[in-house]
Amino acid sequence: MKHLQHFFDPKAVAIIGASATYGKPGYMIVENLIKWGYKGKIYPINPSNGEILGLKVYENLKSIPEDVELVASLAPAKDTVKLIRDASEKGVRGIVIVSGGFSEAGGAGWSIEKEVVDTAYKNGIRIIGPNAIGPINTSNDFVLSFYPVESLKKGRVAFIAQSGQFVAPVMEFIFSFLNVGISKSFDLGNKCDIDDADVLQYLENDPDTKVVALHCEGIKEGRRFLKACKSISRKKPLIVFKTGNTPIGAKAAISHSGAISGDAFIAGAALKQAGAIRANGLDEFLDLIKTFDYLPFPKGKNVGIVTYSGGVGVIAADACEECGLSVAKYSDRTISKIKSVLPKKASISNPLDFFAVAPPKDIDSFYQTAILALGEDMNIDSIALCMMLPEKGVWTPDPYIILNAAKNISKPVVVWLVGYWESMRDIWKVLEDGGIPVYLSPARAVKAISAL
Amino acid sequence: MKHLQHFFDPKAVAIIGASATYGKPGYMIVENLIKWGYKGKIYPINPSNGEILGLKVYENLKSIPEDVELVASLAPAKDTVKLIRDASEKGVRGIVIVSGGFSEAGGAGWSIEKEVVDTAYKNGIRIIGPNAIGPINTSNDFVLSFYPVESLKKGRVAFIAQSGQFVAPVMEFIFSFLNVGISKSFDLGNKCDIDDADVLQYLENDPDTKVVALHCEGIKEGRRFLKACKSISRKKPLIVFKTGNTPIGAKAAISHSGAISGDAFIAGAALKQAGAIRANGLDEFLDLIKTFDYLPFPKGKNVGIVTYSGGVGVIAADACEECGLSVAKYSDRTISKIKSVLPKKASISNPLDFFAVAPPKDIDSFYQTAILALGEDMNIDSIALCMMLPEKGVWTPDPYIILNAAKNISKPVVVWLVGYWESMRDIWKVLEDGGIPVYLSPARAVKAISAL
Repeated sequence: MKHLQHFFDPKAVAIIGASATYGKPGYMIVENLIKWGYKGKIYPINPSNGEILGLKVYENLKSIPEDVELVASLAPAKDTVKLIRDASEKGVRGIVIVSGGFSEAGGAGWSIEKEVVDTAYKNGIRIIGPNAIGPINTSNDFVLSFYPVESLKKGRVAFIAQSGQFVAPVMEFIFSFLNVGISKSFDLGNKCDIDDADVLQYLENDPDTKVVALHCEGIKEGRRFLKACKSISRKKPLIVFKTGNTPIGAKAAISHSGAISGDAFIAGAALKQAGAIRANGLDEFLDLIKTFDYLPFPKGKNVGIVTYSGGVGVIAADACEECGLSVAKYSDRTISKIKSVLPKKASISNPLDFFAVAPPKDIDSFYQTAILALGEDMNIDSIALCMMLPEKGVWTPDPYIILNAAKNISKPVVVWLVGYWESMRDIWKVLEDGGIPVYLSPARAVKAISAL
Repeated sequence: MKHLQHFFDPKAVAIIGASATYGKPGYMIVENLIKWGYKGKIYPINPSNGEILGLKVYENLKSIPEDVELVASLAPAKDTVKLIRDASEKGVRGIVIVSGGFSEAGGAGWSIEKEVVDTAYKNGIRIIGPNAIGPINTSNDFVLSFYPVESLKKGRVAFIAQSGQFVAPVMEFIFSFLNVGISKSFDLGNKCDIDDADVLQYLENDPDTKVVALHCEGIKEGRRFLKACKSISRKKPLIVFKTGNTPIGAKAAISHSGAISGDAFIAGAALKQAGAIRANGLDEFLDLIKTFDYLPFPKGKNVGIVTYSGGVGVIAADACEECGLSVAKYSDRTISKIKSVLPKKASISNPLDFFAVAPPKDIDSFYQTAILALGEDMNIDSIALCMMLPEKGVWTPDPYIILNAAKNISKPVVVWLVGYWESMRDIWKVLEDGGIPVYLSPARAVKAISAL
């Protein structure tokens, strides 16, 4: 899958339909490339010539004096066949077709798309799209997106979607809210050429990628796709968010990306068999990405729950049962360790509700002792901590003490936070920067463990 | 249910086990009462005498020179029977038993709790708890909680939980994150006397309460409870988050609040029949509270979806179908109105993906036109808007224009936001302050409509 490398690390890129007007996609792409410090050559192309952000604008591909490896095209659909011929003459290896007006538009769009594919095939050019935005590669700061990218967080998750307007803002949400780092992100749009199977084959051997997150509306060659899923999921977690599952959603998918969704039930069963982890909904998709990025695999199904609230303990215990996990008994040794940092009358069971009437003598030493004790307890395979965070600092644990304790054990630790939002955000950031994933409800935190 | 009034608007309250030590529950209760400007008399009680926050501390109830209507007790369980006898002599009408060590602790706790109930019954005193924190009433700023309450938002939602350590931080989350206003909030703990049915009867006629949100682990008198549900849900939406649904969760519930959860399936069916709206999980519970607080009822099931992303349109369409809603056709009149603010080539269907390649000429006039057109379209009963919010202002709509347009129509409008977190928070606040609820995923936004 060497051809995908042209899309992620080209030596020179041309933007067909580049614009000097701020806010237009043809401007934003050029701006992103420059701003992020792309090391290759950038050639804006527009018949009107002139300059864009200090770069000379070329009239067409031919007029560029040097080689061009990749093209991003905002040209009208009808001009794309000719563009591919020109690109071939120029030695271009890949095109990201950003424009719409192809199969997703129906009617003549279908035949235009077919001609584009045929022409590209004959000329040895590979296509991402149409109806796509370009790739982001954090390892070399290559940002071809027309969406205004202001932050990047380098990491180990590859994020692939069928929709540019989906992947771009979700990516921004991930960078600003989720503390998940990305290796590569891009969308495949109508998938007239490069499709999910190609991408999976490429990512299987991408050393920068540890987890693969895939949003797709339709699968064109099911067998090939499932084979690729099976192959990659032996090496890396593959999380799939398949949409267009209902008749009306499928209809919307056709007019969005020309995708044929297929039967949702069959797709689900096949994905499972191929080793993919299926996400139900966007929240779960994002939770799963974080889970697999952050956590080691637990040795078994026994969860130790530590909470300040009996009510939350019940919710977490329900969630364990619903997810096929067990709420195990703490060992006597664990109980006696924890007893040493709680008021005498506290009764210790799992879930451990440490805040009966009186708060513990010292909340930090309580959390530290509990985490270390559960870390050594052979009855426990993973730990779910629930914390309440008042606006006022009273009873708020020091997150660094929790981090340090968690570093000394080798079991997955997840956290649920609730309380005053600003306190939550602060502690959330400290915990996730330190490697403990945070979720927005006790059930979601427990579900994270069960997904591993 | 006049007795509940003693818990929400007492003329004088005594705190048994008040403390002068910052951070102790017995200190925090007194602090909350003073800080929030409780208009009645506050009597801290502790054998050590002295002063707490400038208030004289009394040795016991008897030594208070005036009448006491309500008592909050942090006394050990074993001293509670005597306390009730003393309270009766003093003319006290209600006790909030904050302490644990009763039925939730098992063993001797069960018999102590029984004796407490018998004694109170004989002496005409009603009990909230044990193992509860006190009520908050926003209409008179009466805050009996030992949880440090820093913000209150007056509103129309009554929030009742079975767990104080659940209700308190969740309430703080609601105040700081969710933009939902509360009329009353409290927890019922072990429910040895006052239970859910009492509360529902009281809230049915509470003029400050429009929506009732109930978290419960167990129901003691099922028939009475369901009768109360039936009665109130004819007048006000009743949202129920029932936990302790699995065997292991139910076990945790017993040791948390002594609750017997009963069969989850039967409970679910019965609740539905009684007109309650059942929440699955905390996220959904909070979403539903907001939904019923904010939105008018739609006339029918037809949703108009407006999105910047085809991919999100597919997710929203899937969600409609899954929730029993319809993605209807826009009328010709609607289509021609919307066409006027989009590039010529844009194809208009529902979901309406307005951001194909080129953004609309003017994103504000697009949203305004679309909302007003859908507002007049007889084919559409409610509107789901999806907005992407980059860190950079480009393509971000003016939320005030959306608010103004929504004010001119009488259909429910829900919004899903995604993108850069800080931009989201800003616009989120503007929209919710103006009455449009915001959700964290397209599916949750659509589900909100379906719940109405």
